[in-house]
Amino acid sequence: MSIPSSEPDDSVSAGEFSARYDKFVVDLLGSIAYGELSAFERLSSDARYSPTLRDRAVVGKMAVAEFGHFEVICARLEAMGMDPELAMLPFQRIVDAFHERTRPADWHESLMKAYVVDAITEDFYAAICEHLDLETREIIAQVRTSDHQRALLQERLKAMLGEDPRLSSRLALWGRRLVGEALAQAQRIGAQHSFLVGLSPDGTQESAEAEVSAILSSLTRSHSRRMSQLGLTA
Amino acid sequence: MSIPSSEPDDSVSAGEFSARYDKFVVDLLGSIAYGELSAFERLSSDARYSPTLRDRAVVGKMAVAEFGHFEVICARLEAMGMDPELAMLPFQRIVDAFHERTRPADWHESLMKAYVVDAITEDFYAAICEHLDLETREIIAQVRTSDHQRALLQERLKAMLGEDPRLSSRLALWGRRLVGEALAQAQRIGAQHSFLVGLSPDGTQESAEAEVSAILSSLTRSHSRRMSQLGLTA
Repeated sequence: MSIPSSEPDDSVSAGEFSARYDKFVVDLLGSIAYGELSAFERLSSDARYSPTLRDRAVVGKMAVAEFGHFEVICARLEAMGMDPELAMLPFQRIVDAFHERTRPADWHESLMKAYVVDAITEDFYAAICEHLDLETREIIAQVRTSDHQRALLQERLKAMLGEDPRLSSRLALWGRRLVGEALAQAQRIGAQHSFLVGLSPDGTQESAEAEVSAILSSLTRSHSRRMSQLGLTA
Repeated sequence: MSIPSSEPDDSVSAGEFSARYDKFVVDLLGSIAYGELSAFERLSSDARYSPTLRDRAVVGKMAVAEFGHFEVICARLEAMGMDPELAMLPFQRIVDAFHERTRPADWHESLMKAYVVDAITEDFYAAICEHLDLETREIIAQVRTSDHQRALLQERLKAMLGEDPRLSSRLALWGRRLVGEALAQAQRIGAQHSFLVGLSPDGTQESAEAEVSAILSSLTRSHSRRMSQLGLTA
């Protein structure tokens, strides 16, 4: 596979850099694939608790889209000669633990989780993508919730908050917990799997940490903006 | 919409027959739509308990196919000027109760449930379809699990039974319970919603019951054949 535009410096051989880069991409794709498979399973289980059949269909459709993303990433891993199952395995425990810690108590929390976590995850991928080769970027770009579905979700949440003003403080709190857990998870994956170390040609832990920290600040800002759009304080 | 080939006799006006027929088709499509939506939600929730990531992907894919069926039927109902939600509502309680009574205790039972219930449901639709107009038949024909997925499921079940011979008696028992509940549900839907009464031009409860009973016998035979293919006694 092709190496991204930032070339290795003289202290690291091109071969070493390329191997580190490939490992990074496989880790990234593995974590995305498992994240999407889990999102599919959790969301479609939650769908059953939707108040109306129409809502069940909306949430079900979102879940189906996540499964489609999972398939896209698996196909890419296979094309790279990797076993998707092996690529996903290292991320299973972290992602499962995230979902255990953020189990929605009801339909409102479930919809809010879809809104918050889905968006912040996509922002995370988008930020990392800036460092990647075109082919990988194009694959990851396919793993996006459509604007239509995003708008539908936001509309549904606004209607919910409009109908029951007491929900606002509960969902604002829930949103803060979700984003806290999501960012902690991103950091944890980064630390355990040397995520992003593979990205910088000098490949030091320090430069990777600085990079992660810049990404996390930007994710937090976008999250606050999305909460404001719902009339909630982040 | 077009009326099926069996014409009404003189004692029933064409208008009455057509209205009864349309009501029947809407009921049938509503029950199929809700059945597929539920199957999607149950199966995708069960997917999480699959022993390997590969199995989770297989079960997830089956679930996604069920959601596709749900969408096909909803589109048809909308094209008929019907609200899919209203068409599904009358069947919600019966289908939910069926799933509550047949909650898989583990992954093996979950896979067996997919195998048994999915096939018998399709046989049921196919039997009813013989009486329907071509357009409706073509729609319902789209609501079929692919042979590939069916084969995959059977292969997985055979492997499971091969690995653990003690499973055979438990799963044979489970298969009997599932088919018993499925047939009871078919009868219940038939009784409560005058299913099939709409099919016979003389539209009597007796002829409908005879028809249902013939269909149920045929479903039972096909089920036994499928159990034999797994090396189990029905």
